[in-house]
Amino acid sequence: MSRIILASASPRRKELLEQIGVEFEICPAKGEEIITKTIPSEVVEELSSQKAMEIAELITQYDSEHRDITTPTDIMVIGADTVVAYENQILGKPKDEEDARRMLSLLSGNTHSVYTGVTVVLIDKNGRAGKITFHEKTDVVMYPMSDKQIRDYIATGESADKAGSYAIQGKCAIHIREIKGDYNNVVGLPVARLYQELISLGIDIYLW
Amino acid sequence: MSRIILASASPRRKELLEQIGVEFEICPAKGEEIITKTIPSEVVEELSSQKAMEIAELITQYDSEHRDITTPTDIMVIGADTVVAYENQILGKPKDEEDARRMLSLLSGNTHSVYTGVTVVLIDKNGRAGKITFHEKTDVVMYPMSDKQIRDYIATGESADKAGSYAIQGKCAIHIREIKGDYNNVVGLPVARLYQELISLGIDIYLW
Repeated sequence: MSRIILASASPRRKELLEQIGVEFEICPAKGEEIITKTIPSEVVEELSSQKAMEIAELITQYDSEHRDITTPTDIMVIGADTVVAYENQILGKPKDEEDARRMLSLLSGNTHSVYTGVTVVLIDKNGRAGKITFHEKTDVVMYPMSDKQIRDYIATGESADKAGSYAIQGKCAIHIREIKGDYNNVVGLPVARLYQELISLGIDIYLW
Repeated sequence: MSRIILASASPRRKELLEQIGVEFEICPAKGEEIITKTIPSEVVEELSSQKAMEIAELITQYDSEHRDITTPTDIMVIGADTVVAYENQILGKPKDEEDARRMLSLLSGNTHSVYTGVTVVLIDKNGRAGKITFHEKTDVVMYPMSDKQIRDYIATGESADKAGSYAIQGKCAIHIREIKGDYNNVVGLPVARLYQELISLGIDIYLW
């Protein structure tokens, strides 16, 4: 018996795992995000690791405390974190609409990068643990947006909880000229890279 | 009063117009596709034009024959056609599973291009007509696929009705290393370019 656990509350990440046909559970990490890095690729790797580790520890602790009712199980925990970076400046989720307007004005007509860090923690039924962490980068080129287009986009409400204040898979699609890299990485989870990394470790996520 | 009509039965194109929040009707073109070109970009432009023109003529004919019950209306008809091209060879929809296997073997580990042609026919309530046609190209890099991975993918059933025998927005996502260009163009409708082309003509598709 084995369990795949997504350590994220993001509906986009859930949809991506569903899209590729993986069976999994969701157990969102809630711990405080502690950032000790400044380079975007390192920040997302660090945060993805914190999320995956938090949930892996929670589950192994629960299982060890309930040995009488739990069955030894192989566990895979997937943590992920996404940031938008423009000219070495990390753009997280906007504080308010004014902050969203500021971010979209920066991105308008320019190229920015989206980084998603992913950590997979594997714990086999004998308690042996392994961990891989990687990140994927995608460049995104936006068409110029007028002040009215930015206002109209923020009015859709999509900006509120998104890194960089936009959702490529939502109504912002009309403002994206092109990308270079993995699209799903911008949505929030590079499922191709995740699948390929696991294959290279001899793990088929569909048979696991 | 105005109507936007999508001249395509593709559920992907429908979803993309819904994603960007446009209100539209669907009236799929059914005419025989007559290809006089060989260059991918010209083929998709030609076919998109045939589809949009077929439906535009159907609607204007119906309206003129039913002047007593129809109200003069501004009409926008959107036609689109997508092909996959690898080394100047156009890959359409597969004839059968063997054909799908052949196509995916060509694409495995390589870079191919996806072309979508779009034609917009505009007919105002006085019967004056205008037409724009353009195409968008996206390069797609696939990870190498083993024979088993190709067989497993074809077994999902996704290959059957897709140009190039795959769906980037489906389970094939795990085999896509990166793209360069517009993702939605690969899905089947470059909604960003469509929006921007109309804006450059002074048409806001949301207010039209």
